[in-house]
Amino acid sequence: MSLIVMKFGGDALGDKGKGASKSSAEMLSGARFHAEKFRHMSRIARERRDRGDRVLIVVSAMGDTTNRLLAMAAQLHPDPPARELDMLMTTGEQQAIALMAIALEAEGLDARSFTGPQVGIVTESIFGKARIREINPAKLRAALEAGSIPVVAGFQGATMDNELTTLGRGGSDITAVALAAALGADICEFYKDVDGVFTTDPRMCRSARKIDRISYDEMLELASIGAAVLHSRSVEFAKNYNVRLHVRSYLHDRPGTIVTAEEPEMEDIVVRGVAYNREESKITIAEVPDTPGVAAELFEKIAEANIIVDMVIQSAPHGGRNSISFTVPRPDHEKAMRITRACMESMGASAVVGDNKVAKLSIVGVGMRSHPNVAARMFRALADAGINIQMIATSEIKLSCIIDEAELEKGIQVVHDAFPDQVSEAAVVG
Amino acid sequence: MSLIVMKFGGDALGDKGKGASKSSAEMLSGARFHAEKFRHMSRIARERRDRGDRVLIVVSAMGDTTNRLLAMAAQLHPDPPARELDMLMTTGEQQAIALMAIALEAEGLDARSFTGPQVGIVTESIFGKARIREINPAKLRAALEAGSIPVVAGFQGATMDNELTTLGRGGSDITAVALAAALGADICEFYKDVDGVFTTDPRMCRSARKIDRISYDEMLELASIGAAVLHSRSVEFAKNYNVRLHVRSYLHDRPGTIVTAEEPEMEDIVVRGVAYNREESKITIAEVPDTPGVAAELFEKIAEANIIVDMVIQSAPHGGRNSISFTVPRPDHEKAMRITRACMESMGASAVVGDNKVAKLSIVGVGMRSHPNVAARMFRALADAGINIQMIATSEIKLSCIIDEAELEKGIQVVHDAFPDQVSEAAVVG
Repeated sequence: MSLIVMKFGGDALGDKGKGASKSSAEMLSGARFHAEKFRHMSRIARERRDRGDRVLIVVSAMGDTTNRLLAMAAQLHPDPPARELDMLMTTGEQQAIALMAIALEAEGLDARSFTGPQVGIVTESIFGKARIREINPAKLRAALEAGSIPVVAGFQGATMDNELTTLGRGGSDITAVALAAALGADICEFYKDVDGVFTTDPRMCRSARKIDRISYDEMLELASIGAAVLHSRSVEFAKNYNVRLHVRSYLHDRPGTIVTAEEPEMEDIVVRGVAYNREESKITIAEVPDTPGVAAELFEKIAEANIIVDMVIQSAPHGGRNSISFTVPRPDHEKAMRITRACMESMGASAVVGDNKVAKLSIVGVGMRSHPNVAARMFRALADAGINIQMIATSEIKLSCIIDEAELEKGIQVVHDAFPDQVSEAAVVG
Repeated sequence: MSLIVMKFGGDALGDKGKGASKSSAEMLSGARFHAEKFRHMSRIARERRDRGDRVLIVVSAMGDTTNRLLAMAAQLHPDPPARELDMLMTTGEQQAIALMAIALEAEGLDARSFTGPQVGIVTESIFGKARIREINPAKLRAALEAGSIPVVAGFQGATMDNELTTLGRGGSDITAVALAAALGADICEFYKDVDGVFTTDPRMCRSARKIDRISYDEMLELASIGAAVLHSRSVEFAKNYNVRLHVRSYLHDRPGTIVTAEEPEMEDIVVRGVAYNREESKITIAEVPDTPGVAAELFEKIAEANIIVDMVIQSAPHGGRNSISFTVPRPDHEKAMRITRACMESMGASAVVGDNKVAKLSIVGVGMRSHPNVAARMFRALADAGINIQMIATSEIKLSCIIDEAELEKGIQVVHDAFPDQVSEAAVVG
C-alpha cells in the first residue's frame, strides 16, 4: 500500500484569470465556481484509492482567487502590510480545501480538510515568503490511519507564535513536497493541464516531446521552460529530501514526467531538453586595460543596484586590452547601461555597447558529462542555420548560447532536432 | 480612557444579497467588493480613537459572502459535513478582518487582524453552532497595550483540539459581546443601517420611534422585532456578563439605543415597545372531558414531533368539559393538526378546529410591573378598533394577544398609539 501525495493546482479547481488583461471590476466581481472541476478531481482521487493506495491531497486556491484578493487589498492600500496580506491570501486555499473535502465526501470518500497551521506546518516569521522550519504531521498520520483522505491547504503555515504566513511563489507545490517528505510518501503527484515536462516549449517547436524521466538537477536547469510546470524551489526541496515527483495531466490517466534522483541510465540521453529565455540583454565594454581589479569595480556597482548578472565573458587580452561582455535581465538593461557608462572612464575603457534584443538558448542533460562533442553539435546546428553565437557559457549539465532574439525560434528548432535521442524509448514510468 | 468594542456587520462592509431571490449563478459569481465601505468604517474607527478611546473591532463576513459559500457547498453535496462547512464559512470573516485591517492602516492607524482561534476563543466541539467555552485574551490585551486596533473575526472559534468551529446564528454579535465581557470593555457598539431599536416596526406603524434605553429583558421580549437588530443569544450573553450594548447607525454619529441592565427609572415607561409575529397558527380542540392527564398526552405527542407550542389556554370547565386552544409556528400547523386529530378520539373530544391565519401582538415593558391597567388599555384599544382578541397570554413584562392576521397592522397602530409615553424624553444616552 503506497502513500501518495496528490497536488491539485488552481487551474484544476477553477479558471485561471487572464491576470493583467482583466479589468479591475472583473477581478473583483469574482471567479465563477465550477462544481464540475471539484467532482472531476474527486473521481481521480477515488480511482487512486480504489487501487488500494493511501491518499493525501494538497490544493491551491481556485483559479484566480489569489489575484482577486490582491486586487481588493490594492484598492484599499498602495502597499498593504505583509502580515495582513497573508491573513487575506490564506483564505483562498482554505476555501478550496473545504470544497474539495465536501466534493470527496459526495464521492463516498471519508475526507477531512486541514489548514497549514492545523497540520503543524511551522514557518519562519517572515510574511509573504516564509520558509518551512518544521512539520509536525501527527494529525495527518492519525487521519491517514483512520482511513480518511486529508485535504491540506497549500502555500500556508504559521509561526511558532501562531501568526499566519504564506510561503511565497510556488508555495503550494512546496507544501506538497514537504508533506511527502515528512510522511515518507512514495510519490508526490502534480496534476496539471499539461501532459508533463517537455523536451522544449511546444509553442516554439512542434517536435517537442514529453520527457518520461528527468533528474532533479536537469529539472532545475530547465527551470526557464519548467517554471510554468514546477517552481524550482519545490524541485530543490524534493532533491534535498529525495521525494519522487510525478508531473501529470488531470485530463487523462496516462503517465507524465517522473522527476527523481539521477539514475545511471539517465546519462544515456545526451540532452534532456532545450530551454530558452527571451528576457535577456547584453552589455559589452570595449578595450578595458588588462589590469587587476578593473572588472571588480564594475560588478560591485551593478550588484549594489540589485541587478543579477548572468553570463560574463572576457575576451583574451589583445594589446594589453580586452573586452568584457555580460548579460542582465532585460528589465534591468537601462539601469545597468547607466552604471557601466559611469564606470567607463575610471576603467579606461573606450566604449560601452548595449543590446537588449538577445535571448539565451540552452541545452540541459546529465548525459553531457559522458558524451563528447555535445557543444560542437549545438554550434554546428546553429551555424548551419546561419545563427551567430554571441556568447557561450557552460556548466556541468548545461550549455548556453546568447543569440539574436529574432532567431530564437529557429534556433530552438534546429538545436532540438540536433539531439534526436532526447527521449529514451526505454524509459519506463514507475 | 474607555475600551470600546465596535462590531461591524456584513451590511456595513458589503451588499447584503437578496438571498433566495438571487439566481444560483448570481450567487456564485460573487459579491462586488466595496472599498468605500471599508474606508467609511475606518474613518468611524479613527474618530473613536481620536477621542482618546482604545478600540477593538469585530467584523462579520462582507455582505452575502456566507450565502455564496453555502451555495457553492450545496452544488457539491446535498448535505455537506458540518465540519467542512465551518472550514469554508470561517474564510468569510477572515477575508473581512484582513481587508478591514488594511483599510485601517491606510487611514494611518496601527491595526492587526486576528482569527477567532488566534485570540483564544475556545468553543465546544459542535460544528455549525458551537458555544464559547472560554476566551484567553492575552494576545488581544498585548495588541491593545501596544496601541494597535485589533480586528477580530466574528462567528468563529476553535475547539481544544484546534478544530475550526462557527457559533451559529448571531455568532458575530456573540463574539463581540464575549470579547467585551472578557476584556471588561466599557461598551459594545453595534454599527447598523438602522438608527437603533424602535418602539415597533416602522414599516407597520409610521409613529414608531427610536428607543433611547432599553433593558436586556425588554430587548429579549422584543426579539420578534429586535431579531433583525440583535440576535437574542447575544443579548442573553450581554445580560449574563452585564455588557452595555449600543445599537447605532454607521450612517451618522447620533446616539442609537443603549441596551443595559434594568435601571429604576425604566419602570417610568409603561410599555417599551410593541412586537408582533405573523407566523402563528392556532388549534382548538373542543369539549375535552375535564379529567387529569388528558392534555398531557396531546402535548407530549406534539413535543415528540419537535413542534414548539407557544401559548396554551384552557377554558373554564362547563358541563364537565372544556376546550383547549394553543398556538404553534405556522410552518408546523398541518403536522400539529394531524397529531391533534389523531388524539381527538382517545381524548374524547368532539372536534378539532385549526386557523393558520392568526398573528401575535405583544406589548413589552418593565413598567408593566408597576403600572395598573396596562392590559385594560391594550384590550380597549383593540376593541375600539373592532379587533377581536382570540387568546391572551401574560408574563411579568409582556402581554400578548392572538388576533386575526388581517387585522395585525391596524392592531399594531392602535396599541402603539395607546401608550404614547413609550419614549421617555428624559432618557439620556451615555
